[in-house]
Amino acid sequence: MKTLKRIAVDMDGVLADTDTHFITWYYNAYGVQVPYEQLLGKPEGEGFPEKGAIRKFAFTPGFFRSLPVMPGAVEAITALMKDFEIYIVSAAMEFPQSLAEKHAWLQEHFPFIPWNNIVFCGDKSIINADYMIDDHPKNLDKFKGVTIMFNAAHNTNITHHQRVVSWQEVLNLLKTVEAPYLINSNGNLS
Amino acid sequence: MKTLKRIAVDMDGVLADTDTHFITWYYNAYGVQVPYEQLLGKPEGEGFPEKGAIRKFAFTPGFFRSLPVMPGAVEAITALMKDFEIYIVSAAMEFPQSLAEKHAWLQEHFPFIPWNNIVFCGDKSIINADYMIDDHPKNLDKFKGVTIMFNAAHNTNITHHQRVVSWQEVLNLLKTVEAPYLINSNGNLS
Repeated sequence: MKTLKRIAVDMDGVLADTDTHFITWYYNAYGVQVPYEQLLGKPEGEGFPEKGAIRKFAFTPGFFRSLPVMPGAVEAITALMKDFEIYIVSAAMEFPQSLAEKHAWLQEHFPFIPWNNIVFCGDKSIINADYMIDDHPKNLDKFKGVTIMFNAAHNTNITHHQRVVSWQEVLNLLKTVEAPYLINSNGNLS
Repeated sequence: MKTLKRIAVDMDGVLADTDTHFITWYYNAYGVQVPYEQLLGKPEGEGFPEKGAIRKFAFTPGFFRSLPVMPGAVEAITALMKDFEIYIVSAAMEFPQSLAEKHAWLQEHFPFIPWNNIVFCGDKSIINADYMIDDHPKNLDKFKGVTIMFNAAHNTNITHHQRVVSWQEVLNLLKTVEAPYLINSNGNLS
């Protein structure tokens, strides 16, 4: 029996366009339009004039529920589900109020992902998968499989993971990856 | 640097006394006191006269929030945290309303467990750990590490996992396990 390889897919910054949402919420709260370029290479939140604003947003009811979907994410996940086992893996525990919001958000935008394949966790070193798509080096660094870093303002200067700038690039990468992406039940390549 | 081995600990039926809670809720709903013996060896819910009652309870707000703590669990987890990395791993996604309740329950009864070490998932094959303590064979069967089956009415007839009937037995087992429970960062035994 062939076993599909498994991809752990992050939510914030990967399925959801968190950078855009931060800029929108900042504008709504402070009336200042922060240019995306101002966030480049800085830890999340530090590119905004008001320190602590971004973290406050992340604890505000409604923030996670109203995140815009990353362009192309729905189509790409739909396509990948034919060849891979897709698990959605979000570090939601830091923001407990986000648990219900993230679940409702997935139900709205990705209703075709079964509940068995959703994980809300803290430290992602607990995750057993073949690939991890994430925007945070701290998650990718501890992962033992193949890492794919989704481009985000905060990770611009990170060079030790394979970067993708769009979901189309993820598809291109995984369709052309050198190793076949099917393994049999013994863990051997098919 | 030494790395502590990691234990994935289930909630329902392991940290929480689900069997007792089912019996209590059944009595409150139907006025019938179902003896524990009637549940032995039957899939969860099937030992109760009214079919579907237990599943309905699991979708009822308040059910998971009001679960009694399994005797000895707080003391045992406290002790194990000295020698192991403890992750709480609950298949909460089947009952989405339970997400906030399970989080609040852990905050009340196990406030010393950091958010980084909590996982709410669906299929537990995503979990990467050295030990798994769970009452459900379906979770233990797919696990690649050492399995410990916490005794529950529904698993009475299962014999292919190491059974423990109490948290004291977990402590006895893990203190006397043949292999040392410390590994260094290279994955070798210390």
